Amino acid sequence: MVRGTVPPAPAHVPSVREVLRLHGGAVDLARADTRATPHAPGGKEEAVADIAAMAPRLAELQEKLYAQAMAGGSRKRVLLVLQGMDTSGKGGVVKHVIGQFNPSGCHIHAFKSPTKEELSHPFLWRVRQQVPAPGMIGIFDRSHYEDVLIVRVRELVARNVWSRRYGAINNFEQGLHDDEVTVIKVFLHISFDEQRARLLERLDNPDKHWKFNPGDIDERAVWPAYQEAYEAALQKCSTDTAPWYVVPADRKWYRNWAISRLLLEHLEELDPHYPQGHFDVAAERKRLLDT
Amino acid sequence: MVRGTVPPAPAHVPSVREVLRLHGGAVDLARADTRATPHAPGGKEEAVADIAAMAPRLAELQEKLYAQAMAGGSRKRVLLVLQGMDTSGKGGVVKHVIGQFNPSGCHIHAFKSPTKEELSHPFLWRVRQQVPAPGMIGIFDRSHYEDVLIVRVRELVARNVWSRRYGAINNFEQGLHDDEVTVIKVFLHISFDEQRARLLERLDNPDKHWKFNPGDIDERAVWPAYQEAYEAALQKCSTDTAPWYVVPADRKWYRNWAISRLLLEHLEELDPHYPQGHFDVAAERKRLLDT
Repeated sequence: MVRGTVPPAPAHVPSVREVLRLHGGAVDLARADTRATPHAPGGKEEAVADIAAMAPRLAELQEKLYAQAMAGGSRKRVLLVLQGMDTSGKGGVVKHVIGQFNPSGCHIHAFKSPTKEELSHPFLWRVRQQVPAPGMIGIFDRSHYEDVLIVRVRELVARNVWSRRYGAINNFEQGLHDDEVTVIKVFLHISFDEQRARLLERLDNPDKHWKFNPGDIDERAVWPAYQEAYEAALQKCSTDTAPWYVVPADRKWYRNWAISRLLLEHLEELDPHYPQGHFDVAAERKRLLDT
Repeated sequence: MVRGTVPPAPAHVPSVREVLRLHGGAVDLARADTRATPHAPGGKEEAVADIAAMAPRLAELQEKLYAQAMAGGSRKRVLLVLQGMDTSGKGGVVKHVIGQFNPSGCHIHAFKSPTKEELSHPFLWRVRQQVPAPGMIGIFDRSHYEDVLIVRVRELVARNVWSRRYGAINNFEQGLHDDEVTVIKVFLHISFDEQRARLLERLDNPDKHWKFNPGDIDERAVWPAYQEAYEAALQKCSTDTAPWYVVPADRKWYRNWAISRLLLEHLEELDPHYPQGHFDVAAERKRLLDT
């Protein structure tokens, strides 16, 4: 891509980061509208067009981030953490938003129920192994937060164990920040009714049965306990260095648009540059033409 | 995607597999035209259109492959091995061809110079760790073949060590086949002149300096030795279960088209299906509507 062909966002475009970011104080998810579309450029049609308009800028920023790590020694990288109830769209974000990037520069990991080996280690052990390398965009589909979400709701460990994990998570994420990992934590916020509609869609389409798990309905029975566990995690772990963003996710187009914008705003702030070559261009040119 | 919306390829479309596949006998790369476009649907324009037409079929087949492993217990998966001289387009294939898939279902690994730890193990040790899990499409950007290519050319180990590796590789790949890994090995064949042109392009564009390494020119000095090493690897390791495909790669559009077709033909042969749900749909529907 020719240098400078993609103009930066005009200064008057409102920051999605600021409007979606959690700022201290109690979190009340029931009061956060799951169908809201803050700062959207219009309705679905305009958002889809804006996502397409962002794609080349995202691609260029990703390539620069990658290039400056591969050839310039930079340690900068990005980690997008996706959390949300079943059907909230974590997989959809990977497919539609992350799918716009060059796959070489993405490291995607879906955290499932821990294996026996993983359980034999501290809860962050398996997470540390998936931290993106310098230059990469890492994506966690679920994450270490499950250790204070399902683990808390289903009482998989004692309260005095999970209750200490919030502090451990904050320390871990501070360490990531210190090592030049830009952490973007996204909670995909859907409503109880929207989840029902999405599960119904899976049941009504045989091609989607593979995505359906009867256990998902059992989890709905403890929806309020999950919302409470999310509120605690969002509140205790929204730090200056790794804040949480609450993305209203009942509308898929808004979800995809908002996360594209969040990535774009963070990447623009990182402002990566193609590194200079450590060689004499004229001399290498001559050597090459002699072959 | 609605079942059956994407028709299979008409039976009269010639198989790219057959025309690009190596069949026994001596391999003479100098006689293989790097600008050829066997079975292409026309020129660049038609090929680009055909790649776009293949995209939804590839996406559907990938999702089915993934689904039948996740929910149906299938062990089937695909491994695309990309080899070729510097600038032959391994990275371009990942970006343009693999970029069409859902990134959740892809496992991409670029093999670099082995680390000290990797060198302390048998040469296939690090490769085994990157074999795609059931349902995934794995992509090797370089591979275990480097252990009979650069290692042979640069005499990084003794001849009696590398010469035994061809057999070890064949055994390893037979094991992959037995474990339901469809192995697609692609040699991206470019000419000496095309490589010069591509390296020159990198030198002449400061935004591409990060991709340039003065060592690439040193490697050109031993081009014939590399071609010989490739000929040996292609000949000794093109087996019935894991044949090599030689893709003329001077034209990027043909390279992308041919690899898209190779993937499509293999995935169509695998013929994955969405698995049936192991639950009573009516009962689950009722349970869900009661929430």
